[in-house]
Amino acid sequence: MNLAEFIEGRRDAHLAELCELLRIPSVSAKSEHKADIERGARWVADNLRAAGFKSVEIVPTNLHPLVYAESLDAPGKPTVLFYGHYDVQPAEPMDLWTSPAFEPTVRQGNLYGRGTADDKGQVHIHLKAFESLQKVHGRLPINVKVLIEGEEEVGSVSLWDYVQRNKAKLQADALVVSDTSMLAKGVPSITYGLRGLNYDEVELTGPAHDLHSGVYGGAVPNPLAILSELFGKLHDKNFRIAVPGFYDGVAKVSSAERKALNALPWKRKDFEKAVGAPGYFGERGFSIVEQLWIRPTLELNGIWGGYTGEGAKTVIPSKAFAKFSTRLVPNQDPKKIAKLVEKHIRKLLPKAVHCKFEVLSTGKPWVAPFHAPIFKKAQTALEKGFGKKAVFIREGGSIPFVTQMHDTFKVPCVLIGFGLPDENAHAPDEHIALENYFGGIKAIAHFYEDLASL
Amino acid sequence: MNLAEFIEGRRDAHLAELCELLRIPSVSAKSEHKADIERGARWVADNLRAAGFKSVEIVPTNLHPLVYAESLDAPGKPTVLFYGHYDVQPAEPMDLWTSPAFEPTVRQGNLYGRGTADDKGQVHIHLKAFESLQKVHGRLPINVKVLIEGEEEVGSVSLWDYVQRNKAKLQADALVVSDTSMLAKGVPSITYGLRGLNYDEVELTGPAHDLHSGVYGGAVPNPLAILSELFGKLHDKNFRIAVPGFYDGVAKVSSAERKALNALPWKRKDFEKAVGAPGYFGERGFSIVEQLWIRPTLELNGIWGGYTGEGAKTVIPSKAFAKFSTRLVPNQDPKKIAKLVEKHIRKLLPKAVHCKFEVLSTGKPWVAPFHAPIFKKAQTALEKGFGKKAVFIREGGSIPFVTQMHDTFKVPCVLIGFGLPDENAHAPDEHIALENYFGGIKAIAHFYEDLASL
Repeated sequence: MNLAEFIEGRRDAHLAELCELLRIPSVSAKSEHKADIERGARWVADNLRAAGFKSVEIVPTNLHPLVYAESLDAPGKPTVLFYGHYDVQPAEPMDLWTSPAFEPTVRQGNLYGRGTADDKGQVHIHLKAFESLQKVHGRLPINVKVLIEGEEEVGSVSLWDYVQRNKAKLQADALVVSDTSMLAKGVPSITYGLRGLNYDEVELTGPAHDLHSGVYGGAVPNPLAILSELFGKLHDKNFRIAVPGFYDGVAKVSSAERKALNALPWKRKDFEKAVGAPGYFGERGFSIVEQLWIRPTLELNGIWGGYTGEGAKTVIPSKAFAKFSTRLVPNQDPKKIAKLVEKHIRKLLPKAVHCKFEVLSTGKPWVAPFHAPIFKKAQTALEKGFGKKAVFIREGGSIPFVTQMHDTFKVPCVLIGFGLPDENAHAPDEHIALENYFGGIKAIAHFYEDLASL
Repeated sequence: MNLAEFIEGRRDAHLAELCELLRIPSVSAKSEHKADIERGARWVADNLRAAGFKSVEIVPTNLHPLVYAESLDAPGKPTVLFYGHYDVQPAEPMDLWTSPAFEPTVRQGNLYGRGTADDKGQVHIHLKAFESLQKVHGRLPINVKVLIEGEEEVGSVSLWDYVQRNKAKLQADALVVSDTSMLAKGVPSITYGLRGLNYDEVELTGPAHDLHSGVYGGAVPNPLAILSELFGKLHDKNFRIAVPGFYDGVAKVSSAERKALNALPWKRKDFEKAVGAPGYFGERGFSIVEQLWIRPTLELNGIWGGYTGEGAKTVIPSKAFAKFSTRLVPNQDPKKIAKLVEKHIRKLLPKAVHCKFEVLSTGKPWVAPFHAPIFKKAQTALEKGFGKKAVFIREGGSIPFVTQMHDTFKVPCVLIGFGLPDENAHAPDEHIALENYFGGIKAIAHFYEDLASL
């Protein structure tokens, strides 16, 4: 039986197994899910063993365990390091899910559930590609190292620590990652650029305790109003970020590259349909694709303070909070940017509030040329899986690990995504198109098979 | 035994009984407390019966029941209508209470618990004054009508409805209310002015659902940023409210009155100690007392949206919310102000978000001369209870009912408060000074006794 036929015959088994993994609420941001995270790591390790990896270890860390496996039975053949993550974003707000976040459900050709697209579904594509190659060929055609972490959604600190201490062990000819998106349905894509990130939190304290807004209103600093005013000032009227020096490090993107990105089969209509907002705006002078992929941003991710329950409570709260993130592009330095942002925020704030500023996570932007032969192999394999030529794209999200690995090992990083931008990664009703999941297993199995002749 | 001695001998019994009432979590804003609200109404009715009122009724309404009682056994003597409320503000955030909100606790001369100052403690002062007069004299020296509602913290809609349908029944020579504050510890106070109020909520909707802030950041409307920008624009640099027409109705306060208010024994040091903020600002050109009592304000009471949990979640939420209130002064019309504010907000908002605007509660401002003889009686009685002459003050809070009653019955409204501005009404660790509570029972009993000779 050939590889494609074998994979085709296992569709139901593959899907059922993925659902098992998705049912584990391995939310890395919340300490209450510690046990689930550990269950997630064990599941991945067991699955790698079942896929034929003889050397599999669960590595304890300061936060969440990571899983490392290797199969080095193809002497003389290339070695790839596959990276993914088994942790997921929090699923709140729960009431906005059509079916529960951790009860995977198929509707209209999509599989719904937290982690379907980001990243359990994509990790599972590789696990099943490895397993299929083992079952069909009796062994893997190339050497494979697998690293699946549990802290991607909270900054990958332990992972990076592990990599630093195991450089020789992790050495490979290429890094392969599936944690990105396809440009659109039916358009297999290879990502060659990612934005970096600082995720920050500010806490403002005005009055020492909550106050009655009738008794005190008009004469005391209201941290909610001060927070609003602050964030109202962080963009200018052209939607540029109004932090002095913020754009200093931004590398110019060539007009050829801008032209190529704008010529991709990307449809504004599909984008607007996916977002569903009454209107759109972004940094002046750039197309939407450019705003998303090659320009830095500052986005509020959460604000809270005061009374947020049912009905009316006339309170001036002691504190107000915001979480926000800056997405960064080459060659912005996250550390420098964090300092510039903090400095500007402190400058804008009146003396009537205290401010606590914290960087919760950080990651460098990444962009790389795609000339190495492995990219050609990836393009061909994607065509085998999807019947269509793959395009080269950039992406707005961040995978800090990719930059770190690229900087450390100086090898090609091949980012092949099987999600879609409108599949609600990080939001309620996250899903993955089943055709991309099944097509992905075929494409990736062919990719690893073809790499034997690299 | 004379009245003062009788009251003195009942201190422990009075306190124990008040604690009973405070243990009922009669939070009117939250539907989950419906049964507690009803328990609160029954407790008040039972207590009025125990105080000697033969005619006591619990009146069902569209929302929360109110309690009405009367004792009309003093022919030829004046009739007062005493008003108070048995409902309380929500107690959240619970973790900021030193002792639980609904487990009243005495510490350093203060009784802590939700409702101690606003308004159960103050209502109880009157209930025990009535009871003491009954026990000492065998009957009440004047005619008394009592109206205790359960919706003061959510807009008093049912109360007002009841008053409109029972005008003849509620007719009295004066309205007496204890739901305000003393100027400072040891300074008994009669309040002759209150601010009005609109309590509003806005809901902004941008994207149809939550989005990944990496994938979409920079090209879609972020409702959190738009909300911040909006509220950043509602005050000008002099901390005046930047809504066109907002100040149009504001009546000029005479320089004599401003002088009198600024000459009160009010201490900036005590105010700043009570608030505990790192700095202060308010509308330019007015003293703090003026900012609090005679100037209108716009205060954010709550904002929320996006991810507010532990750690990082890179989301652009679909919605952002704010609760805010405008405090109003004579002769601003709350209905007009609500329209001006809504219109200005809609004008400021970009087309990229939808806005839902809702007025949750409303109340007119009130200010009244204090020439009627009953004010003299109140001043004398307060001196008997506290050994110090009472001052006439205004206040920043709102009691919409007072204006409505004043407009309807055209009788003097006597507002005698026993709270203190720093007793955390509407905040964690709400409390009442026991010396004010016990002094209040004595003062109010004397007040009702003295009114027989009005």
